Amino acid sequence: MLIVGELINASRKRMRQAIGEADAAYVAQVAADQARAGADYIDVNAGTFVEREAELLPWLVETVQAEAGAPCCLDSPSPRAVRDALAVHRGQALVNSISLEAERWQELMPVVAGSGCRIVALCMSDQGMPETADQRLAIADKLIEGLTKEGFALEDIFVDPLVQPVATNVAYGPEFLQAVERIMAGWPGVHTICGLSNISYGLPARKVLNHTFLAMAVGRGLDAAIINPLDQRLVAMLRAAEALAGRDAFCGGYLQAYRAGLLEG
Amino acid sequence: MLIVGELINASRKRMRQAIGEADAAYVAQVAADQARAGADYIDVNAGTFVEREAELLPWLVETVQAEAGAPCCLDSPSPRAVRDALAVHRGQALVNSISLEAERWQELMPVVAGSGCRIVALCMSDQGMPETADQRLAIADKLIEGLTKEGFALEDIFVDPLVQPVATNVAYGPEFLQAVERIMAGWPGVHTICGLSNISYGLPARKVLNHTFLAMAVGRGLDAAIINPLDQRLVAMLRAAEALAGRDAFCGGYLQAYRAGLLEG
Repeated sequence: MLIVGELINASRKRMRQAIGEADAAYVAQVAADQARAGADYIDVNAGTFVEREAELLPWLVETVQAEAGAPCCLDSPSPRAVRDALAVHRGQALVNSISLEAERWQELMPVVAGSGCRIVALCMSDQGMPETADQRLAIADKLIEGLTKEGFALEDIFVDPLVQPVATNVAYGPEFLQAVERIMAGWPGVHTICGLSNISYGLPARKVLNHTFLAMAVGRGLDAAIINPLDQRLVAMLRAAEALAGRDAFCGGYLQAYRAGLLEG
Repeated sequence: MLIVGELINASRKRMRQAIGEADAAYVAQVAADQARAGADYIDVNAGTFVEREAELLPWLVETVQAEAGAPCCLDSPSPRAVRDALAVHRGQALVNSISLEAERWQELMPVVAGSGCRIVALCMSDQGMPETADQRLAIADKLIEGLTKEGFALEDIFVDPLVQPVATNVAYGPEFLQAVERIMAGWPGVHTICGLSNISYGLPARKVLNHTFLAMAVGRGLDAAIINPLDQRLVAMLRAAEALAGRDAFCGGYLQAYRAGLLEG
């Protein structure tokens, strides 16, 4: 299971303040905390600064990597910000994200192709968000075909089938889960990834929905997630889900997490 | 989701004492608490008393039903205890359990056939516990065929594919989950049920494994579970899982549970 730590995001009030004030110590601390808790990538997002994003994203990368060493997930729709962040990034970055939207593809592809990065591919097209598993599969097919043509290995592609709120349509849960299973079966080696919070939009007690959905998705093959790695209950559930899905030989990862004290709470 | 409340079980120390002392008030209280928390059936088990089981099981049924009104799950391997408990049970009982073991089948069938009860059918045969999904399906096929021949409707059959510990074999999780999905797809109307604790046998921090596995199983179609309904976190997760699996129209059950305060904690 690949964990992308989501906490360095300018949409969070305290983090926005730290980024605005160039408070490297705070950013570095949150990066280190997430890496210690098991994050494989540290997400960096300066999206709410709009005009300054191309300046702030590289600064975030340098600040994070100086402290935590971990690779970053460059979370930006701006090709310029991604380009400048990639230029200072050490190791293999994960770029979040490309989609099948023509403009996004045309602008971002020259930045990422051949750069050696990994990439999140959203199941979104100029026709909008997909509703069914079939629609997600059709978009994933084109995304994977296009990305492999541009030189990306399947192992470097993370397909995000896009979670939609079950409060809107109760079929959205199973359609997403089925898409995960079919993508993982259809392109061996490719990864699937998702954020969680959309699933529970419009419902109360959202955390239990988010966490439960993640366990169900891991049970269908999801092997990466953008989460708060400091949420010990969620991480414990993730490690458990991996063992229960048969993807943790001898439950070694689970036992290691237990010994590291990550399954408490 | 059908919940069988597991707390009235003589293998629990305090409950054994209450049963031994014919402490009806305590038994009735635990029954009422479980019914209030959403249990559809109250499990009654006097198994550790061996010699007195056929006397104590009917007493438990009467004590539970006098207080909670809910139907009982008669949890006993003894045909005599089941027969005498069924004789005093009001409404439709769930008998736990029959299996494909020849002796068990021959002794229990005359007691349950035509009695109007529902039945848990364990995927176990004289060849022992199944390991793979295929083995579970083969046993389920024979169980369902035999039970329908004896007059049981599919809706009254609860197949238990039998959870085995992932610490023994990491394939046990996925094989069970696959069996749930295939049984639910293969016999529309039939139910699947399970207890949880075996899955985590031999591992630390068992609760997170048990709870996570339940969510994953509900995601594959499991529609009944033998659990502690006073564990609010587990019940919250179950209600969430049902909505996320697309089996809760307009998230109505989830919202109702929320309004009843069952999703807190």
